[in-house]
Amino acid sequence: MSAASRASLNTATVKHATLEEATQAAAEAGFGAVGPWRDRVQEVGAAKAARIIEEAGLRASSLCRGGFLTAISPEGIEAALDDNRRAIEEAATIGAPELIFVVGGLPAASAPGAGPRADASAADRDLVATRARVADRIADLVPFARDHGVRIVLEALHPIFAADRAVVSTLGQALDLASPFAAAEVGVVVDTYHVWWDPELRPAIERAGTEGRIASYQVCDWVLPLAAEPLNSRGHVGDGYIDFATITRWVADAGYAGYVETEIFNEEIWAPPAAETAATVLDRYRTHVEPFLSTPK
Amino acid sequence: MSAASRASLNTATVKHATLEEATQAAAEAGFGAVGPWRDRVQEVGAAKAARIIEEAGLRASSLCRGGFLTAISPEGIEAALDDNRRAIEEAATIGAPELIFVVGGLPAASAPGAGPRADASAADRDLVATRARVADRIADLVPFARDHGVRIVLEALHPIFAADRAVVSTLGQALDLASPFAAAEVGVVVDTYHVWWDPELRPAIERAGTEGRIASYQVCDWVLPLAAEPLNSRGHVGDGYIDFATITRWVADAGYAGYVETEIFNEEIWAPPAAETAATVLDRYRTHVEPFLSTPK
Repeated sequence: MSAASRASLNTATVKHATLEEATQAAAEAGFGAVGPWRDRVQEVGAAKAARIIEEAGLRASSLCRGGFLTAISPEGIEAALDDNRRAIEEAATIGAPELIFVVGGLPAASAPGAGPRADASAADRDLVATRARVADRIADLVPFARDHGVRIVLEALHPIFAADRAVVSTLGQALDLASPFAAAEVGVVVDTYHVWWDPELRPAIERAGTEGRIASYQVCDWVLPLAAEPLNSRGHVGDGYIDFATITRWVADAGYAGYVETEIFNEEIWAPPAAETAATVLDRYRTHVEPFLSTPK
Repeated sequence: MSAASRASLNTATVKHATLEEATQAAAEAGFGAVGPWRDRVQEVGAAKAARIIEEAGLRASSLCRGGFLTAISPEGIEAALDDNRRAIEEAATIGAPELIFVVGGLPAASAPGAGPRADASAADRDLVATRARVADRIADLVPFARDHGVRIVLEALHPIFAADRAVVSTLGQALDLASPFAAAEVGVVVDTYHVWWDPELRPAIERAGTEGRIASYQVCDWVLPLAAEPLNSRGHVGDGYIDFATITRWVADAGYAGYVETEIFNEEIWAPPAAETAATVLDRYRTHVEPFLSTPK
């Protein structure tokens, strides 16, 4: 794989583009892959999504996303398992070897969609039990994913999202959750936005490499002040406070040789045409990430 | 110490009150202590501050705060050391056995005051080196603090503040920074707002107890949505997502028998008269914290 082709454009970075538009923009800019979200796959169907990506000469680096596994009720659990089985089938159909999992927040606080958040008074606050349920649901889903040739990839989210989006908050915790399973079954993603602050990041990346579990490296920057909606507060690589040279070297030294996906949620970055955003993203990748991907021989 | 008297009112929770007003409100509500901020101490002078607290029949549970230790330049380092030596003297004068340290963020991004934040483009992004400088500055200050009978207390701040307020992001990291020093010289604070999400919280609290380093237990709640200024996004205990029963039991089981300080930054909570806020804070403490402070015999 040439160095340039390791760049992947996550479709959430060009949120207003269809899959065809996003894929076209990525191919023209020089990306080697796209990382589609399920909404963009579902609106054309997984089979056609696979053709769109293939005909653009690209690969699907991953599918975003499964997860939201923290329900307590039997109906809630079954609904989550059903939805994740569909996501696994979609990943297999588009040829995405990895399905990213955002595991969900505290029950009732968890907001998979964009709707208003639940009242805290209705929330179950038992974080320990919620995390244990996540482990149980992963165990439920691993055989199905294995049968479809799809790896479940656990994403640690920044602790700012621990209440409402993901009770997996560190890379080390994601690795602990993955540990009962083979590396080919459950991997982890290193997303700079979510893990850059972690004092245990370097050993966690080393461990992930040793265990063969680094399934994806995602990049975007931590910018301040936070946006009113913190979910959409991410910046272009180089615009914020993250030390991409250092983290990228750690990921490379851990043996990761796969795609580097840029995934940015930010209203201002969504506004320009997809081609313009794609070009900016690739430029930032070439400046701040690519030079640090090769380890010295 | 009776159970009720373990409650301490941090003066930041009644931000608009003078030290005298805050102390009066705390005493009337039934608190056993106040945790003053330096601004409220400095405006009357440390000697008078000590009298105000003593005449109200209260103790100073801690002084907030020293720190902001991440400067690179010799002048910046000397200014930080000077300011912290003054803070140590103030803590000694008011009889606060503990001086809370917020260590500061990345240089140039760090905003000790309320002023506008620096441009990210000017920031030094080397988090590893920044953390190493914090360790060096603590070593510089320990002898002076020891000579004044004041313990330096490291506060891990939520990772949301890693860029601009504190590069110490977990309790475990705070303990690692404290480890070169005696427990009487450098302790840690367990602040629920900052550490509630941490998957390693329970073992970190156990370690802190075993090492004799739990110097303070601070409480306030994680509420959503975040305020426009995330610093002021904290909620009354019980209004958010934190499991106070569980964390309080962990702290009690670790042997902590000191004050429980409520420290809330929130424009809406600052608006009512200090007496009203103090009464609410004590009510929440009695409901959500106090019942879990006693470990079974």
